[in-house]
Amino acid sequence: MEMVPEEIDTPEIMVDRDVLERNISRMAAAVGSKGLALRPHAKTHKMPQIAALQLAAGAVGLTVATIGEAEVFAQHGAEDLFIAYPLWVGQRAAERLRRLSAVARIAVGTDSAEAATALGSALGEAAGRIEVLVEVDSGHHRSGTAPAETAAVARAAAAAGLRVAGVFTFPGHSYGPDMPARAAEDERAALGEAARLVREAGFEVQRVSGGSTPSAAFAESGAVTEVRPGVYVFGDAQQLELGRTRPEDIALSVAATVVSRHEGAGGIPRRIVLDAGSKVLGGDRPAWASGFGRVLAAPDARITALSEHHATVAWPDAEDLPALGTRLRVVPNHVCVAVNLVDSVAVVSEGRLVDRWDVAARGRNS
Amino acid sequence: MEMVPEEIDTPEIMVDRDVLERNISRMAAAVGSKGLALRPHAKTHKMPQIAALQLAAGAVGLTVATIGEAEVFAQHGAEDLFIAYPLWVGQRAAERLRRLSAVARIAVGTDSAEAATALGSALGEAAGRIEVLVEVDSGHHRSGTAPAETAAVARAAAAAGLRVAGVFTFPGHSYGPDMPARAAEDERAALGEAARLVREAGFEVQRVSGGSTPSAAFAESGAVTEVRPGVYVFGDAQQLELGRTRPEDIALSVAATVVSRHEGAGGIPRRIVLDAGSKVLGGDRPAWASGFGRVLAAPDARITALSEHHATVAWPDAEDLPALGTRLRVVPNHVCVAVNLVDSVAVVSEGRLVDRWDVAARGRNS
Repeated sequence: MEMVPEEIDTPEIMVDRDVLERNISRMAAAVGSKGLALRPHAKTHKMPQIAALQLAAGAVGLTVATIGEAEVFAQHGAEDLFIAYPLWVGQRAAERLRRLSAVARIAVGTDSAEAATALGSALGEAAGRIEVLVEVDSGHHRSGTAPAETAAVARAAAAAGLRVAGVFTFPGHSYGPDMPARAAEDERAALGEAARLVREAGFEVQRVSGGSTPSAAFAESGAVTEVRPGVYVFGDAQQLELGRTRPEDIALSVAATVVSRHEGAGGIPRRIVLDAGSKVLGGDRPAWASGFGRVLAAPDARITALSEHHATVAWPDAEDLPALGTRLRVVPNHVCVAVNLVDSVAVVSEGRLVDRWDVAARGRNS
Repeated sequence: MEMVPEEIDTPEIMVDRDVLERNISRMAAAVGSKGLALRPHAKTHKMPQIAALQLAAGAVGLTVATIGEAEVFAQHGAEDLFIAYPLWVGQRAAERLRRLSAVARIAVGTDSAEAATALGSALGEAAGRIEVLVEVDSGHHRSGTAPAETAAVARAAAAAGLRVAGVFTFPGHSYGPDMPARAAEDERAALGEAARLVREAGFEVQRVSGGSTPSAAFAESGAVTEVRPGVYVFGDAQQLELGRTRPEDIALSVAATVVSRHEGAGGIPRRIVLDAGSKVLGGDRPAWASGFGRVLAAPDARITALSEHHATVAWPDAEDLPALGTRLRVVPNHVCVAVNLVDSVAVVSEGRLVDRWDVAARGRNS
């Protein structure tokens, strides 16, 4: 995947099918060898074709973020879906969950007795068909309850007619530099206490679910029963800069063209401008990142500014600026948000365009 | 527009039609009173319905960022389109421009002799139907050539068979705090010099085009002939925090639900979590912004973290946390990228849902 195939108009997202398949196999083998279940997060790719590859490689089911994503993957044959989100459910959402539960095994998250009660009440007689995993805060301090509160949430869910299946967490603080090992330890401690307390409250804890892409490598049988990594299918510039993905394992990039070129002088910066802006790369930039993505062919180039349709790239002083019209591949900082910007991706293999896949679950925010 | 209408499932983008129409009228009157042409940037809204309101209020035409956006608005009847971007055009793009020029007046940007030559060559006999505006760098240091180089670019464009119509710039540095007046002065100086040099090279400079939303207020007849503001139709949290938009002029917000609620203790932050994350608000956050958007009903609340489907909101200590299930309206930091995330918006008037509009040009990145 060195070149941009001629058929591609820039900017467009390219997925290298061979690298993708290798990433999927590698994670499946690593998780399987530990005796854990793999339930990849499909919000990263939103594509039924990739979900099918993950399931064929041994994933037990899929994780999704919204009811809308669950609907898309169920329509494409997924039979076991976990909506890993603390849903607040009204009548319309409850009806959608009822319909989903008729065609697939459905689990959802909850992090308070109040939300669990509202969920059971909205679902009515269908509540017994929906599994609930209690969300625990393992240090990311986003959603999730304290481990000590999990048993109360489980009891409320059961009283509302729901099936309590276990506990889950998202150790989102694992994405920071030097954080994976510590976040994995936080995750293990929080899930361990939560699982113990829910078990002591009389529930069978079938599922203890954790694991971001960075912390999945630290997951152990006994501490968790399943992991939910997402980003590993593609990799991205964040993972690259943190040293957790090798350049040769990057499966997704944005094909871009040099549209403007300036040698710079008199305080005006030397730079090129690419036609891939925040409307295809996404605007995410953590404070520790070197820029708004990475140019694959130029490791020392820096994307210093990103507007909607322009990436401004400071080029290494020692290297000639690429010519106008040069096509380059840019790796987005955060691949999940880049994929969500496009309706389809170009699938390439050995440098040739072999297919286009629709991002079927794009924009399914609710 | 105080409330979120019951029919809306969160997260969803809401547009208040009455505020929108007021914003459109106000800008049209302000620009018209100076004797300038208004050519609003349609990348902000990407909706033919809003373009129609702008044209009905007196806009002379539309600005767009890509050929794909031009195609969508031309299909919906726009007759005068400026692709304000330094296009690098191959055969497929040239064919699309030829087709566009058969149904609408089309102008494009260019910022180098080489790109102008390539454009004319790719267009062949159709080159004479395409107007070119030479892009000048007025201090944003993105695309655009130095004013001193503009005449050479104009000559190359003419030699390639294109119609040289004038010069343009985007004073993007106007978006920083305390920058509008200075950026407007930079814009005036750069456009003035460029227009003079292109005129001295023997061209009739019919169009001198400038004006971001912040700098449009400083535009003057004599310095420019037209302005291209975009954000003014909706306003956003950036404009709000910079004091350039009043809360009552915000026409677009994201309806969101409180899905998680934590009083906080022992170092764990007091917070609520809303179901509007970066996949509907967009992830843009300038260094000077107070957070990742603003909660309209709670000016002192701060969106301290944003992940794809979660906004973590630090609530003012003096105020009770809103109950789970409460529906709030969040103003995105940068409205152009938020609109680009959704396929349609809910249109409201006096608190009632009155329509849904497709974001017809969403994702038209090339």
